[in-house]
Amino acid sequence: MNFTKTITLLLASFCFITNAAAQNDSILIKKIFDQELLNGQCFQDLTDLTTKIGGRLSGSPEAAAAVVWGKKVMESIHPDTVYLQECMVPHWVRGEKEFAEVFRAVGNSRRREDMNICALGGSVATPDSGITAEVVEVYSWDELKKLGKEGVQGKIVFYNHPFDPTKIETFQGYGGAVDQRSKGASEGARYGAIATICRSMTPNHDDYPHTGAMHYNDSLPKVPSCAMSTNDADKLSEYLKSDKHLKFHFKMSCKTLPDEKSYNVVGEMRGTEHPEEIIVFGGHLDSWELGKGAHDDGAGVVQCIEVLRLFKALGIKPKRTIRAVLFMNEENGLRGGKKYAELALKNKEHHIVALETDRGGFVPRGFGFDFKPDMMAKVLAWKPLFVPYGFDEFIPGGGGSDISPLIDQGVPQMELLPDSQRYFDIHHAITDNISNVNKRELELGAAGIAGIIYMISQYGL
Amino acid sequence: MNFTKTITLLLASFCFITNAAAQNDSILIKKIFDQELLNGQCFQDLTDLTTKIGGRLSGSPEAAAAVVWGKKVMESIHPDTVYLQECMVPHWVRGEKEFAEVFRAVGNSRRREDMNICALGGSVATPDSGITAEVVEVYSWDELKKLGKEGVQGKIVFYNHPFDPTKIETFQGYGGAVDQRSKGASEGARYGAIATICRSMTPNHDDYPHTGAMHYNDSLPKVPSCAMSTNDADKLSEYLKSDKHLKFHFKMSCKTLPDEKSYNVVGEMRGTEHPEEIIVFGGHLDSWELGKGAHDDGAGVVQCIEVLRLFKALGIKPKRTIRAVLFMNEENGLRGGKKYAELALKNKEHHIVALETDRGGFVPRGFGFDFKPDMMAKVLAWKPLFVPYGFDEFIPGGGGSDISPLIDQGVPQMELLPDSQRYFDIHHAITDNISNVNKRELELGAAGIAGIIYMISQYGL
Repeated sequence: MNFTKTITLLLASFCFITNAAAQNDSILIKKIFDQELLNGQCFQDLTDLTTKIGGRLSGSPEAAAAVVWGKKVMESIHPDTVYLQECMVPHWVRGEKEFAEVFRAVGNSRRREDMNICALGGSVATPDSGITAEVVEVYSWDELKKLGKEGVQGKIVFYNHPFDPTKIETFQGYGGAVDQRSKGASEGARYGAIATICRSMTPNHDDYPHTGAMHYNDSLPKVPSCAMSTNDADKLSEYLKSDKHLKFHFKMSCKTLPDEKSYNVVGEMRGTEHPEEIIVFGGHLDSWELGKGAHDDGAGVVQCIEVLRLFKALGIKPKRTIRAVLFMNEENGLRGGKKYAELALKNKEHHIVALETDRGGFVPRGFGFDFKPDMMAKVLAWKPLFVPYGFDEFIPGGGGSDISPLIDQGVPQMELLPDSQRYFDIHHAITDNISNVNKRELELGAAGIAGIIYMISQYGL
Repeated sequence: MNFTKTITLLLASFCFITNAAAQNDSILIKKIFDQELLNGQCFQDLTDLTTKIGGRLSGSPEAAAAVVWGKKVMESIHPDTVYLQECMVPHWVRGEKEFAEVFRAVGNSRRREDMNICALGGSVATPDSGITAEVVEVYSWDELKKLGKEGVQGKIVFYNHPFDPTKIETFQGYGGAVDQRSKGASEGARYGAIATICRSMTPNHDDYPHTGAMHYNDSLPKVPSCAMSTNDADKLSEYLKSDKHLKFHFKMSCKTLPDEKSYNVVGEMRGTEHPEEIIVFGGHLDSWELGKGAHDDGAGVVQCIEVLRLFKALGIKPKRTIRAVLFMNEENGLRGGKKYAELALKNKEHHIVALETDRGGFVPRGFGFDFKPDMMAKVLAWKPLFVPYGFDEFIPGGGGSDISPLIDQGVPQMELLPDSQRYFDIHHAITDNISNVNKRELELGAAGIAGIIYMISQYGL
């Protein structure tokens, strides 16, 4: 942002903050935060969702239970309407717990060691007897290409490019490594690999494999693909230095079943003055099943439900329609998000903004906006209302997978920005459970979303 | 801050950031953060301190071991000098684990229940047989005064004014409740109370008593004083509603032994251009002993050590003298901080600034400064160098207990401001251990301190 712009926006902020409306808004927003910090129920909701239902991958009985749960909780709040949006979702199952071991030469003998792996979501299984082969480690696509068929044929490709810990915003580290997970299997298969291993997507050194979606290129053979804990990836890399011909053996019994019927869950309060202007905010109800989907994205789900609860508790009647959506199938298909956009188009709905909360229930730092300059100026003028609650960042850029299908309809996108430092500790791993969620941090996020949704519902964009 | 000031400071920032020095500084600060996030050792240091030594209250063998440990770790980094500053410290011991129970009428019978308490630091013991008495609950000093001798004599005063969870900056909630802990015993004794109970200093509902210092007014009888977990405080309050004459019984065997000899640990790198200008930064080595003193203040200790390590690793030779101090006895006496200031005066040292890190090893949000306007303008011009690392707040107000004795010598005070949301989850409780510290968050704080100390060492104030 240049200096003139900064001054303009500062002026806008100061003009806004000094008028009476802003004072009333400031009072209302304090009421929202006070209500949440004194009587917030989202942490209890998240405890219920994660301990009574648990991990809930699309198509699973747990995902179906989560739909029933979400609808019931929303109904208990009594917004104007609660309804489901049907969609068909992929149904991939992990099967038995995966097994992996490495055999390496130590002096004149061979040593065997277990390794921590898990199937990547969408992977095919190994044969019942597993796969046993040599391993070739690569750090980049260039390196893979240079190895070519000669270096890769019949082997297991081991993608070990690390998640860069020096990126302060950890999603940047993730972005710089995750293509190994998403397309590694097919890129390996292109050169004759019979399976692939991917270093887990975390900047940490831990013992947990972190799962996540991978995609096959239909024109190439489908080979089994797994994630390996970072500690074991470091070990495997070390072992390869002294024994290039070590043998890796692993077994996975995952498979893709026929699509299942599932649902988005929607709760809505109609606007009193401009009901046709819709403000949608959501998180996703499905989750990976190694953990309990607490931060990803149970946190977003309960925060969105809490916004409705806060509006009701404080007697706020929005001028524009507000709609909380618990999207289905963000993790491995986005069918819920696509269905939502499809129905919005079909029903000729006018969405003025879409907000996503899918970066964990950590302490909020602000919001990210993919807005045009005039709209950005408007929300920047509101920033002083949120700074007292730790929302220091109102920054360009923002959105989320579930709401991204609305981009084609020109719907401005925004998202909650929690602090990102801890997110990839637990992302898609067994550690994503309620004991790693902090009640106050979760509540501050919920109150912040309620606050910004209130402002948009009052003043439009 | 008013608008004109904001513009002036923004201009200062922009002027600074566009010149070549600032570009070099920006590169150097990135080097500091990269070095820390790739090769940081402070988390390992904290693991060692908290698991090999553990909680380390002044005067205890653990505190003595921590001095040896701190000196050894500092020496391993090879700054110019490492030395100890001797001081005498209080030696209070908890004795056996405290016991408490409540007896209340339920229908025609009496029900007994255990309660979670701990002695407050500095309290006298109960008689060997414990104390048994009725309880009178109060929420304010006014209420206590109104009850007077008639309402209090021979009873146990139960201070139950809650830590306000609506204060976003949790230290404000603490500040609004902690006088119950620090002076509750003597204020109760003033009206004839034979003991006092204090609701634990946390906004949470948990089962852990949170200890902390209390002080007796020497002109009043010294009565035993304990902290009670917030869950049990809620229960006790509820029980009192139906049975005003319930009996509370508790037993504590804590005592104060003669003062012990102890030390501050100091590590110093002499300035190359202005060695006489001293920049001191510190945390405190002692801790309460219910937990392991991980966040309070092992985090601050290892961050200060890490600053020296970072300077050495990157070959930074400070123009002004930098000095890391591991202060002894912050928790219950401040003898180390007082000794440091006394020696600074005696040795005619010129301190240009003192920084404290004693708010936990959580994700940093910025720095607080108790600076005059010209100095504040100078550091605000540096803020853009730190914003990329999440240091969004360069705000007025800052300091710390250990460095506060230097105020009389006119030394400007500042402190690291980590996010405060989780601090009182663990403060002075059994939960203050390494498993509640996040490696990246701790490292970001260490790198931030190193960065600001670097800037001050280069440019003065």
